[in-house]
Amino acid sequence: MQRYKLTIAYDGTLFCGWQRQPEPVRTVQRIVELAAGQIVNHPVTVHGSSRTDTGVHAEGQVAQMDAETHIGQDPAKGGPDRLRMAINSRMPSDALITELQPVEMAFDASAAVRKRYRYQIWAAPDRPVFNRQFMYHYYQPLHLAPMAEACRHFVGTQDFIAFRGSGDERENTVRTIFAADIRQEGPLITFGIEGSGFMYHMVRNIVGTLIEVGRGHWAAGRIPEIIASRDRQQAGGCAPAQGLCLEWIRF
Amino acid sequence: MQRYKLTIAYDGTLFCGWQRQPEPVRTVQRIVELAAGQIVNHPVTVHGSSRTDTGVHAEGQVAQMDAETHIGQDPAKGGPDRLRMAINSRMPSDALITELQPVEMAFDASAAVRKRYRYQIWAAPDRPVFNRQFMYHYYQPLHLAPMAEACRHFVGTQDFIAFRGSGDERENTVRTIFAADIRQEGPLITFGIEGSGFMYHMVRNIVGTLIEVGRGHWAAGRIPEIIASRDRQQAGGCAPAQGLCLEWIRF
Repeated sequence: MQRYKLTIAYDGTLFCGWQRQPEPVRTVQRIVELAAGQIVNHPVTVHGSSRTDTGVHAEGQVAQMDAETHIGQDPAKGGPDRLRMAINSRMPSDALITELQPVEMAFDASAAVRKRYRYQIWAAPDRPVFNRQFMYHYYQPLHLAPMAEACRHFVGTQDFIAFRGSGDERENTVRTIFAADIRQEGPLITFGIEGSGFMYHMVRNIVGTLIEVGRGHWAAGRIPEIIASRDRQQAGGCAPAQGLCLEWIRF
Repeated sequence: MQRYKLTIAYDGTLFCGWQRQPEPVRTVQRIVELAAGQIVNHPVTVHGSSRTDTGVHAEGQVAQMDAETHIGQDPAKGGPDRLRMAINSRMPSDALITELQPVEMAFDASAAVRKRYRYQIWAAPDRPVFNRQFMYHYYQPLHLAPMAEACRHFVGTQDFIAFRGSGDERENTVRTIFAADIRQEGPLITFGIEGSGFMYHMVRNIVGTLIEVGRGHWAAGRIPEIIASRDRQQAGGCAPAQGLCLEWIRF
């Protein structure tokens, strides 16, 4: 058996999220396992680093799989990229393995040290026509300066339980946010956040809170109070899945 | 009756082109006519400037319609933009009226003097995952320099009958191309062309020809010969619809 590290890009619009379900619904994990299994000729289990939700996109999801195959063993015949392209030939048009490399059996996709997510908001009365599956349409303009100020309050090692979605029962609610930035190009506002890890709905709850700041409902200086409250009710709502994209994961 | 000039953006993926058909298929003209008719409370006919094909996109299609309505007459209540937003509220998510203005009854959407189209090619072994509906995936790399040289040969007032699609029977096959440019960002090659008008499939046939040049099959210097031949067989194939977008139209 050889372990492989996979980097996977997907348009989450038509997927019921990353994780395989007991029912045969269309998830990214399932379609990668089916495609890889057809190519290597034995059942394959793929373990992802992030369990992205229904509708969430990824440019750089990372996963591991163990497989035994002669495909991709011969450097003269393209090496591991040959295996990658063979699996991709069995994948649907909305998902693609962008990298595949043999790794030590000790490699653990769940042991990421840093991840970056991006969230796109289209803030304008007119809805977006192109790329509308990749952004959240917010009907009013948002003020960027207070949102940028609010971003700075998220950086650091803090207890983010006030931003934890209700489905998450993990005990350790402390995370380190390394960076949080926001920029605007016309009606498109792009928020980026890098952290040691994120709880269920955490990025989307942070975005919902930033929107409250951007529309002038809350002051940016309220963020530290919300964090300190440890109360989910104090933070903003959960922003829709479609604006969210997992950009990359580092190990 | 008041005549209105409409600017319309649409993602052509799920439309059977611009033009209304005898059968009730989903065309842009039909959905705009239905939405406008519901708002102004009488049947509306919309005349477009360009009959874009099935799968072709538009950022700035222009059309005219005549309507009689009190909506949008009061400048204190938003003026014509109110009518625009009312019609948009009845439009599906993949089409939007971006501008609406009252014009003289003499305004004729078919009397454009200049149009710009864009064509996007994703030239790489890996297919694109995001925005894949807006580009043509060409599996091999293409050489930009000869394609740019080929572009220059299209500029000018010439008989483009060699690039006319077989469905077009118009007698005058002379068109003026004001500009043709091409650029590359990573695997994405974007071709832009501005002209007095374009015949059926003309832009896509030009793109098919540029691809032959980019892949090294033909020299750029062959373009004048192809034009002079007046023979459709001498030019390249018709590139797929999904890469094409009507950018704007001027009057």
